[in-house]
Amino acid sequence: MKDKQFLMIPGPTPVPETALLAMAKHPMGHRSSEFSAVLAEVFADLKWLFQTQEDVFILTSSGTGAMEAAIYNLVNQGDKVLSLVIGNFGERWAKIAKMRGADVEIIAADWGKAIEPAVLKARLDQDVNKEIKFVTLTHNETSTGVTNDLKTLNDIIQEHGAISVVDGVTSVGAIQLKMDEWGIDVVVSGSQKGFMIPPGLAFLACSKKAWKAYENCKNPSFYFNFGAYKKSAAQSTTPYTPNVSLIMALRETLKMMKAEGLENIFNRHAKLAAGLRAGVRSMGLKLFVEDDSIASNAITAILPPDGVTVPDIRKTLTKDFDIVVANGQNQLQDKIFRMGHLGFVSERDLITAVGSLEMALAKLGYKSPKGEATTAAIKALI
Amino acid sequence: MKDKQFLMIPGPTPVPETALLAMAKHPMGHRSSEFSAVLAEVFADLKWLFQTQEDVFILTSSGTGAMEAAIYNLVNQGDKVLSLVIGNFGERWAKIAKMRGADVEIIAADWGKAIEPAVLKARLDQDVNKEIKFVTLTHNETSTGVTNDLKTLNDIIQEHGAISVVDGVTSVGAIQLKMDEWGIDVVVSGSQKGFMIPPGLAFLACSKKAWKAYENCKNPSFYFNFGAYKKSAAQSTTPYTPNVSLIMALRETLKMMKAEGLENIFNRHAKLAAGLRAGVRSMGLKLFVEDDSIASNAITAILPPDGVTVPDIRKTLTKDFDIVVANGQNQLQDKIFRMGHLGFVSERDLITAVGSLEMALAKLGYKSPKGEATTAAIKALI
Repeated sequence: MKDKQFLMIPGPTPVPETALLAMAKHPMGHRSSEFSAVLAEVFADLKWLFQTQEDVFILTSSGTGAMEAAIYNLVNQGDKVLSLVIGNFGERWAKIAKMRGADVEIIAADWGKAIEPAVLKARLDQDVNKEIKFVTLTHNETSTGVTNDLKTLNDIIQEHGAISVVDGVTSVGAIQLKMDEWGIDVVVSGSQKGFMIPPGLAFLACSKKAWKAYENCKNPSFYFNFGAYKKSAAQSTTPYTPNVSLIMALRETLKMMKAEGLENIFNRHAKLAAGLRAGVRSMGLKLFVEDDSIASNAITAILPPDGVTVPDIRKTLTKDFDIVVANGQNQLQDKIFRMGHLGFVSERDLITAVGSLEMALAKLGYKSPKGEATTAAIKALI
Repeated sequence: MKDKQFLMIPGPTPVPETALLAMAKHPMGHRSSEFSAVLAEVFADLKWLFQTQEDVFILTSSGTGAMEAAIYNLVNQGDKVLSLVIGNFGERWAKIAKMRGADVEIIAADWGKAIEPAVLKARLDQDVNKEIKFVTLTHNETSTGVTNDLKTLNDIIQEHGAISVVDGVTSVGAIQLKMDEWGIDVVVSGSQKGFMIPPGLAFLACSKKAWKAYENCKNPSFYFNFGAYKKSAAQSTTPYTPNVSLIMALRETLKMMKAEGLENIFNRHAKLAAGLRAGVRSMGLKLFVEDDSIASNAITAILPPDGVTVPDIRKTLTKDFDIVVANGQNQLQDKIFRMGHLGFVSERDLITAVGSLEMALAKLGYKSPKGEATTAAIKALI
């Protein structure tokens, strides 16, 4: 049975019908007062979601565009950037900064691990001349399903005085991130994740401290220029033609998120992750991140059991259950599969996913204790 | 009567229902074989539309993003760029190049005029040491409704040896532009124009000559990186998460465009422009561009009659006819209004627009020969 596809990749994530139908409307003129009224509402709700008083810029790009925006508006050639890398997306910060001409130093943890705060502290304590201007890091690493202890890491960065530049692509709207209260300088995110709409928009918020770095930036980006976005945001508009349709959809999903409430959203994600992890463990499978304290609430990476391959699991889930899960990236390709459970995902969906995974594995010849995984998942959900 | 809005701004332009409904579907995974099959089809159709054998990159951004992509992948700091400016969007090339750190020289024509080929030739002939590396120009200037003689200008640029970087945002899919046959180096465009879909995608194609400049570019863009897009295009994918929904819509509109045929599309636009111009003249109004040989087939700029203001015309058209037209930009604000007639616009729509404009003016007290404008428009259309 087809035409009932359930995306369990880390993005695009499922989109509610309200948002899909908003996209099916004829686009409004982006300079009309009607659209500015929509933008005013969306800008206010984004501040609520990012837990900040600063403007949240809406960029027409994917999340990587917002990462480029951050680096190209802040970092000058030759600036020293420290990149904390725990996977593919942490590496991306370092690559972008290098392409910009920055002097990039990397602190890497093995894939599947988080950054040890003590390691960061030791390095920054060493930097007595304050040569390190920026520290890039990933809140939730999509390639491994690890969540860094952002608050603690950011405290260390703030104590040193560098500017923290945070990839919140798969954390905003899924995992607690208090931008202002924690004092984070730059947060970027993307629409096809916790925001529950299709890909095509990215978001960026920056602190007053980061703004000073922008003002000292030579040759910033034009398309992503912070100044242009700030000036436009004050007038409830955008500097260049925005993706009107996605913004109409975003208005709907932000309403849904406000109705649910931030704490409830984060708790739901925590429960879904706990349920999936319990289900997977009860099948006798190994989690790529066994340490619950750093395991992501948005994405779970799972090792296939002996004798069953990742491509076979993905194929069977797609063919027989219309569920799409992601392969591992880079060195983890075919070593793990990743299930996204962020955004528009309910407890019901989680039961579906665990039950389907168990059945798919049975079809592939894996002898697990049959039918017990959903029980384990439900116990963790209740 | 509301809920029947007709966008006659230069973008977003009207979107056919087929495309809107494609956007209302749940997004596909962007790394799936199903989506790669869609991309393969769309990439092929874009080559047809751009009349090129080169790859046409699909960028998730608005048209300005593609302009930034062109400059940031080709131009090094200190490179000499000659910008041909006939309006707001020509100026944008110069601004982006300056922000990049290029040494920018401007040849400007008065707003409402085109670039004189002889003026360009004289300047490039003078450049015996070939210091000018790039020439930026606008095919169809959206702020004034003027179309440059792109073929002739590009011939002069190619004879000199510089790289031509062309804004085709409101010309591709509306006005003849033979990228390969004319030997143009870089063409950029945006989705919410001739492509008949909402804003959010941009397009860029570049010649082998331009590719060499890319290979010599230090510190290019990461998000818009030509090399990354080319490598991905060869595998029917994109380097970063694309706007899946808009690409599904684009597949539908490209099918419609192929069914209509390029020559028919360009002829339709030429007829619509001629019809509107005839109608406007028969009302006794002045066209901002009186010279038919440089008047745009995509956008027409009109002066209000004495005693009637641009804001009043726009307000009445919106309120009583649900038609949205654009104001002038910069120094032309409130001096002209602009009617877009590109993309999903039919002869029927044109009659609607001319008749509504005539009625709106009558309501505002302008005494024109009543009811004759549609007759004049229809005569030009037949």
